[in-house]
Amino acid sequence: MNQKFRYIHFQGVFQVHEKYISVKSGYPPGVPIYIGKQEANNTTFSIIWYDDKNVQVLSHLDPDTIELHPDKKQITWIHVSGLRDIDQLNRFFSKLALHPLIIEDIFNTKGRAKIEDFNDSLFIVLEMVNSPEEEWYSQKINIIVKNGILISVSESGDPFSTIRERITHPNGKFRSNGIDYLMYSLVDLIVDSFFYALERIEESAETLEDKVLKNPNPEIVREIQSFRHDLITFRRQVWSLREVVMHLERSESVFLKDTTRVFMRDVYDHVIKITEDLDMHREMAEGIMEIYLSSISNRTNDIVRTLTVITVIFIPLTFITGIYGMNFTFLPGINDPDGHILIMSMMTFIASFMVILFKWKKWI
Amino acid sequence: MNQKFRYIHFQGVFQVHEKYISVKSGYPPGVPIYIGKQEANNTTFSIIWYDDKNVQVLSHLDPDTIELHPDKKQITWIHVSGLRDIDQLNRFFSKLALHPLIIEDIFNTKGRAKIEDFNDSLFIVLEMVNSPEEEWYSQKINIIVKNGILISVSESGDPFSTIRERITHPNGKFRSNGIDYLMYSLVDLIVDSFFYALERIEESAETLEDKVLKNPNPEIVREIQSFRHDLITFRRQVWSLREVVMHLERSESVFLKDTTRVFMRDVYDHVIKITEDLDMHREMAEGIMEIYLSSISNRTNDIVRTLTVITVIFIPLTFITGIYGMNFTFLPGINDPDGHILIMSMMTFIASFMVILFKWKKWI
Amino acid sequence: MNQKFRYIHFQGVFQVHEKYISVKSGYPPGVPIYIGKQEANNTTFSIIWYDDKNVQVLSHLDPDTIELHPDKKQITWIHVSGLRDIDQLNRFFSKLALHPLIIEDIFNTKGRAKIEDFNDSLFIVLEMVNSPEEEWYSQKINIIVKNGILISVSESGDPFSTIRERITHPNGKFRSNGIDYLMYSLVDLIVDSFFYALERIEESAETLEDKVLKNPNPEIVREIQSFRHDLITFRRQVWSLREVVMHLERSESVFLKDTTRVFMRDVYDHVIKITEDLDMHREMAEGIMEIYLSSISNRTNDIVRTLTVITVIFIPLTFITGIYGMNFTFLPGINDPDGHILIMSMMTFIASFMVILFKWKKWI
Amino acid sequence: MNQKFRYIHFQGVFQVHEKYISVKSGYPPGVPIYIGKQEANNTTFSIIWYDDKNVQVLSHLDPDTIELHPDKKQITWIHVSGLRDIDQLNRFFSKLALHPLIIEDIFNTKGRAKIEDFNDSLFIVLEMVNSPEEEWYSQKINIIVKNGILISVSESGDPFSTIRERITHPNGKFRSNGIDYLMYSLVDLIVDSFFYALERIEESAETLEDKVLKNPNPEIVREIQSFRHDLITFRRQVWSLREVVMHLERSESVFLKDTTRVFMRDVYDHVIKITEDLDMHREMAEGIMEIYLSSISNRTNDIVRTLTVITVIFIPLTFITGIYGMNFTFLPGINDPDGHILIMSMMTFIASFMVILFKWKKWI
Amino acid sequence: MNQKFRYIHFQGVFQVHEKYISVKSGYPPGVPIYIGKQEANNTTFSIIWYDDKNVQVLSHLDPDTIELHPDKKQITWIHVSGLRDIDQLNRFFSKLALHPLIIEDIFNTKGRAKIEDFNDSLFIVLEMVNSPEEEWYSQKINIIVKNGILISVSESGDPFSTIRERITHPNGKFRSNGIDYLMYSLVDLIVDSFFYALERIEESAETLEDKVLKNPNPEIVREIQSFRHDLITFRRQVWSLREVVMHLERSESVFLKDTTRVFMRDVYDHVIKITEDLDMHREMAEGIMEIYLSSISNRTNDIVRTLTVITVIFIPLTFITGIYGMNFTFLPGINDPDGHILIMSMMTFIASFMVILFKWKKWI
Ligand SMILES: [Mg+2]
Ligand SMILES: [Mg+2]
Ligand SMILES: [Mg+2]
Ligand SMILES: [Mg+2]
Ligand SMILES: [Mg+2]
Ligand SMILES: [Mg+2]
Ligand SMILES: [Mg+2]
Ligand SMILES: [Mg+2]
Ligand SMILES: [Mg+2]
Ligand SMILES: [Mg+2]
Ligand SMILES: [Mg+2]
Ligand SMILES: [Mg+2]
Ligand SMILES: [Mg+2]
Ligand SMILES: [Mg+2]
Ligand SMILES: [Mg+2]
Ligand SMILES: [Mg+2]
Ligand SMILES: [Mg+2]
Ligand SMILES: [Mg+2]
Ligand SMILES: [Mg+2]
Ligand SMILES: [Mg+2]
Ligand SMILES: [Mg+2]
Ligand SMILES: [Mg+2]
Ligand SMILES: [Mg+2]
Ligand SMILES: [Mg+2]
Ligand SMILES: [Mg+2]
Ligand SMILES: [Mg+2]
Ligand SMILES: [Mg+2]
Ligand SMILES: [Mg+2]
Ligand SMILES: [Mg+2]
Ligand SMILES: [Mg+2]
Ligand SMILES: [Mg+2]
Repeated sequence: MNQKFRYIHFQGVFQVHEKYISVKSGYPPGVPIYIGKQEANNTTFSIIWYDDKNVQVLSHLDPDTIELHPDKKQITWIHVSGLRDIDQLNRFFSKLALHPLIIEDIFNTKGRAKIEDFNDSLFIVLEMVNSPEEEWYSQKINIIVKNGILISVSESGDPFSTIRERITHPNGKFRSNGIDYLMYSLVDLIVDSFFYALERIEESAETLEDKVLKNPNPEIVREIQSFRHDLITFRRQVWSLREVVMHLERSESVFLKDTTRVFMRDVYDHVIKITEDLDMHREMAEGIMEIYLSSISNRTNDIVRTLTVITVIFIPLTFITGIYGMNFTFLPGINDPDGHILIMSMMTFIASFMVILFKWKKWI
Repeated sequence: MNQKFRYIHFQGVFQVHEKYISVKSGYPPGVPIYIGKQEANNTTFSIIWYDDKNVQVLSHLDPDTIELHPDKKQITWIHVSGLRDIDQLNRFFSKLALHPLIIEDIFNTKGRAKIEDFNDSLFIVLEMVNSPEEEWYSQKINIIVKNGILISVSESGDPFSTIRERITHPNGKFRSNGIDYLMYSLVDLIVDSFFYALERIEESAETLEDKVLKNPNPEIVREIQSFRHDLITFRRQVWSLREVVMHLERSESVFLKDTTRVFMRDVYDHVIKITEDLDMHREMAEGIMEIYLSSISNRTNDIVRTLTVITVIFIPLTFITGIYGMNFTFLPGINDPDGHILIMSMMTFIASFMVILFKWKKWI
Repeated sequence: MNQKFRYIHFQGVFQVHEKYISVKSGYPPGVPIYIGKQEANNTTFSIIWYDDKNVQVLSHLDPDTIELHPDKKQITWIHVSGLRDIDQLNRFFSKLALHPLIIEDIFNTKGRAKIEDFNDSLFIVLEMVNSPEEEWYSQKINIIVKNGILISVSESGDPFSTIRERITHPNGKFRSNGIDYLMYSLVDLIVDSFFYALERIEESAETLEDKVLKNPNPEIVREIQSFRHDLITFRRQVWSLREVVMHLERSESVFLKDTTRVFMRDVYDHVIKITEDLDMHREMAEGIMEIYLSSISNRTNDIVRTLTVITVIFIPLTFITGIYGMNFTFLPGINDPDGHILIMSMMTFIASFMVILFKWKKWI
Repeated sequence: MNQKFRYIHFQGVFQVHEKYISVKSGYPPGVPIYIGKQEANNTTFSIIWYDDKNVQVLSHLDPDTIELHPDKKQITWIHVSGLRDIDQLNRFFSKLALHPLIIEDIFNTKGRAKIEDFNDSLFIVLEMVNSPEEEWYSQKINIIVKNGILISVSESGDPFSTIRERITHPNGKFRSNGIDYLMYSLVDLIVDSFFYALERIEESAETLEDKVLKNPNPEIVREIQSFRHDLITFRRQVWSLREVVMHLERSESVFLKDTTRVFMRDVYDHVIKITEDLDMHREMAEGIMEIYLSSISNRTNDIVRTLTVITVIFIPLTFITGIYGMNFTFLPGINDPDGHILIMSMMTFIASFMVILFKWKKWI
Repeated sequence: MNQKFRYIHFQGVFQVHEKYISVKSGYPPGVPIYIGKQEANNTTFSIIWYDDKNVQVLSHLDPDTIELHPDKKQITWIHVSGLRDIDQLNRFFSKLALHPLIIEDIFNTKGRAKIEDFNDSLFIVLEMVNSPEEEWYSQKINIIVKNGILISVSESGDPFSTIRERITHPNGKFRSNGIDYLMYSLVDLIVDSFFYALERIEESAETLEDKVLKNPNPEIVREIQSFRHDLITFRRQVWSLREVVMHLERSESVFLKDTTRVFMRDVYDHVIKITEDLDMHREMAEGIMEIYLSSISNRTNDIVRTLTVITVIFIPLTFITGIYGMNFTFLPGINDPDGHILIMSMMTFIASFMVILFKWKKWI
């Protein structure tokens, strides 16, 4: 962890990724440093203008050539994917006159989900889950609404393609709604992504419980701990989401019309459903480790019982053979030709007695 | 989990059931897709008109022929059972001009319990427990009040038959009350269904505790975990119920007259009683796993004690027989005709000593 | 659990007790069904009229002959004990014009503690602990204040005899106070009954802790679980009590004069003291099971140590005797007349070494 | 527990101590019965009058001769120590016209800490810790402010001697402050007494943790449980203290001037510090039992490993000696003069193999 | 713990450190006693005056010669490091007319983090983490804003050097902001220091989890407990920090301009992020001890299984050799030249059977 002061490099371009947010210590606020797990993806811009009659889509365009038409009646939605080209992005955000702290937050992929309502603009940060992958994977989504323009920023890919399809659909009613409905649709899709994750959590919990009940083995401890990690990570994301959506639904923001607010309440309903179901899975998962521990104890019990039964049956018998193996000149019955029959009957009796005793104690 | 966009199929009929709510991802809001554990039941409609003097009942009628008489002084109660015929139901709900989000919620049997108070209508979703079955089983009930009409929707069966009997009873005072009293009666019956479930939980808890105290065996772990599942599921249902009933009791809704509010408070009382008793059962159940674990430890203890007592008694004796089994030409007493008596007295003494020691240690 | 509709029996007399509240499912509200653990006790009525100068007591009177004098300046206190004679009680409560839901609550001995403040009457339900008995035992007390009359209802016995003595005491100052002071005195006595219970809990906790520290045995698990049951039951009762007394102290009710409110605050103080002390006992009790589990582990440890020490000492020795018991024609020293002395010295040495090793390891 | 009614003894003197508060059941409110763990100490009175110029101290005076000068400009502080002489105390408190409920509370040393703000007087009950003793020990302190007089009551001793010294100090600035500053100083000293207790808790926690990590033995369970008792008791006292001091700091009481309120906030700060540190110690202490349990498991593990290693090495060897100890006329190599060398090499090989195996498994 | 009254020494110089805050018991409020873990560091003063055009820095100056220019337009920032010279510091703080309670707090390095907003001055106490060290290490920072002067006090070192560099940087925009921006910058740097600590916690948690999953050994218990200590200490510091920053962000203080408040909200965001991440690490860490305990149980299981398998195979075999070692004149097959082959085949069969049984039971 390098504490050195790097003030003089502010003007430069930071393309390598910084893993830890502490790298910013000592910097003035608003410095756009990219913080992420791996290097940022290539930056691409796409734009869509629409009103109830027309719709126009442009992909992979040069942001420096984008003309922003706040006067136009059309709704403008610009989607930015990938945070690698910090210079270009900085120029673009500056044209929009965003507050330096918002720009800083966009480049910090490890920040908090949140909503900030300025008078002239709305800034939303949310996490979106990409569940089809094997590894738990999520990306930060930023949504800015300002001057009739909506800008969405994703770390990678094109997460909102279904909404673009709905906008461009010839008969769709989407285009007759305002920019707040577009914002709602993005948030709704983000919330829907959490349902995938929740269903995956549900499956994992059931699989794990099944395993631990049917075939508990030490490997499962690792899986339980890994599942716990997923639960904790997911829970934090869900609670951040809940807070933001609640804020949106209840806000007095001018950006949200009353007809759209009803839909926002529907989204909020979904988020609450997710938190409630998640809580159920958490409670159910809590018992799994306990079950595993009880199964180890049970197995030790089984093994020790076997050891005890066999040992306790044979030890007295072996003692008797020891007696008649002693080299004394005289031992009772030693010279009797049927002595060995007598003594072996006795041993059979002792063994039978032990077996009956253990049966009665339910040890065998 | 299929993420493909199915926008173009909205107009069609969805009769197969969708297990996961995530199937709706990417759809516009308000799309009526049936979400449920199994296929929906056949749809039937029944209607009842009543005022304090008259009552008229029609079963298995065709909803397209229902004439809604909002002007009439009579109260209209339409009960819909089964969600299979989505087309027919859609036509029916459209005639009532319900908000698309309400219609969507009716078809989602995995949604949240809730109450929504619009100015002209009241929408309630609740879970109702059907306890006589072996498996834990509950169904979603939707109640809509609008224009002097009450529509109740159940997933299956005829859960409100006792209320219909009370309405049609010749001397009953039911019919002299308003539509809010009808709504109260439905909610009251739903709450009563939870008492059955609570009593079942109570019995399970006592049975389980008894078993674990008297005859703990590994199979009980599975039962404890399954009981935990029931508790968690039930608790979530109860808390949703509590929230809705509390909202009803305190709401300023025009749908609730003051005389009926007193009855609503009584229902709320019952719900609180259920949550309190449930909490008691949960706390009591918490110790069961602990008791089971202590019983395993105790049994291992018992078994190891037996092993130790027998082994520790016989090992020194066997050692002595080993000494006199050695083939040395001379061993003390080996040629003495009474040597074996001496040595066996010694062994008896050692064994007795051990037994006394163990008695003193309270191991036997 | 019988779900059949029994509407037509409402007018009848229900003298058998119903164990489960779910029996009421499907009934209209306000039906007085007796819900209780066992059959209700015989019903008796007693009455007392007093003002600062005079006092008149009547026991075992016929309630149908009671003339209620709301105009009189005297305070009227009617105590009803036992809920068996539902018809008679119903007639009596009807004369007082009580709300059907209140009457229903009086007959439900498994309902919640609560307070309801109507404009013209106050209704209080509380549980009172009867601690001298062996088994945990409590009964529901109902208090109704209306038109200058106070009616108290107990399930059995005469729990308020000390207050009647104070009223009838020639020099007592009790009679110079109003009906609110009478109500306070009843509630105060109920709260005092919880002190007995608390002290009993305290003693049980100490006894249990002592046992588990000094002489832990498997039987104690049953006692711990039973103690837990008592704690949970008591806690719920205390919290209900707390809620009601808090409500009383803070209520704006016209039934409570300011001079009496000071005494109510004193009662509230006592209730809080009880909850705080109860919480302490709960926390202290939480460690008891843990101590028991640690004591089992310790004992297993002890036993296994003994087994190990004895086995590990004798096993190598027995092996040596085995070697010299082999029937080879030649074994080193086997024919030496002092061979056995040499070999037994060796064995003594090995045994001593083992003993020293174990001493060093602090196993013996 | 004696439930008999003792109303007629109220006028008498109660000098024996009552252990349980439930003894008051059935009594009217305000009866001064001494409740305490042991008999009350002898009662002594001391008085101090001061203003910024003069100070006068009287010890061991007769309270019946105390003339209270409410008109005087001087501040009067009366300290009462010991609650044995109930008659004398009662006469004294009556002269001050204290409410009977306050007098009752003063005699109850097992009551709650609290503050009551009447219009003309302030009543504070707090617990003060006397930490130098071996046993945890605390006493109830009562502070009453009325008519320019401050009365403090302690169960025993002279806990406020340092404040008296500061008042009588020739150059001290204490006397230039009002009666609220005197009250603050008493509360501050009480809070400071909790720092001693906290530091003692801290030391105990560290000692216990050290012991359990370095030399865990069964005796420690008793110490852990006893430490838990101390923590719980202390925590309750601290939280009562916190509530009272918070109330004092925020109260709108006329008894507290603004300049003194700043000091009160400082005291409140200290109390919060104590609760926070206490919470830290509690959390740290929580792991101690867990560590102890893991150390027992580890020791059992060690012992069983030793048993296993020795047994598993010698059992096959002993079996081989058994084979050659059989009395068959022919056994392979039995008559070979070097047979025993061959067989013992084999045994050495087996033993070495076992040792290497155990080394590899890291069991030895 | 010395309870003696040391009032007369107040005027003296206290240079030795007092470890426990309880040493202050009995003192009047506002006495500046140095409370710390070790002796205080040497005191040094540095000062910086700046406005948007000019900047002047003076280090290691004599505080008695500092002229405070409240009239000047320039911002004055005085940094004090080290609390040893109590006399000099006292003179300096007196010149600033600080409240005695503030001065007392500055000398108490074991006090609480807090913020106090007087009308004319703002007083902030915060802890700052110095993470590069091996041992967890933090120091108290005091910030006072009064009359256009900001005084910062640190226990040691020069924690704010990066801010001084930014102020003195020729092109920096820092100097165009007010004194509230300077205060914000200090708080921001303190918050950033917690990111270092958080990242360290994160690494420790991962390392510990790895160890316990891959190579659990008894030493890890000590590490887990030590990690728990760090977590608890850090958490308390973070929560104190959170409270103070929240207070700052929401305060109506005249010291905070609206443009700076936006930056304060950014800092608050960071603090919440820290608390959330810390909570995640805590939850993840909670399972570690559990995993360790399960691994001990597993190992005991392994060992006992080995013991059982070997013992149970050889005990019956050894019993058979015992039978044929008995000195009876006749034993079946004893004189058969192939008897030993028969008997050893039988033993091989028994051993094979046992091995197959254990394979089937999955014990080997
Ligand atoms: Mg910074
Ligand atoms: Mg930010
Ligand atoms: Mg977050
Ligand atoms: Mg949605
Ligand atoms: Mg919905
Ligand atoms: Mg929930
Ligand atoms: Mg857990
Ligand atoms: Mg959708
Ligand atoms: Mg729900
Ligand atoms: Mg009901
Ligand atoms: Mg739940
Ligand atoms: Mg009721
Ligand atoms: Mg649990
Ligand atoms: Mg009913
Ligand atoms: Mg209750
Ligand atoms: Mg009382
Ligand atoms: Mg409870
Ligand atoms: Mg009191
Ligand atoms: Mg527990
Ligand atoms: Mg009383
Ligand atoms: Mg208290
Ligand atoms: Mg203090
Ligand atoms: Mg407590
Ligand atoms: Mg605990
Ligand atoms: Mg002090
Ligand atoms: Mg202070
Ligand atoms: Mg703090
Ligand atoms: Mg920062
Ligand atoms: Mg803490
Ligand atoms: Mg979390
Ligand atoms: Mg823990």
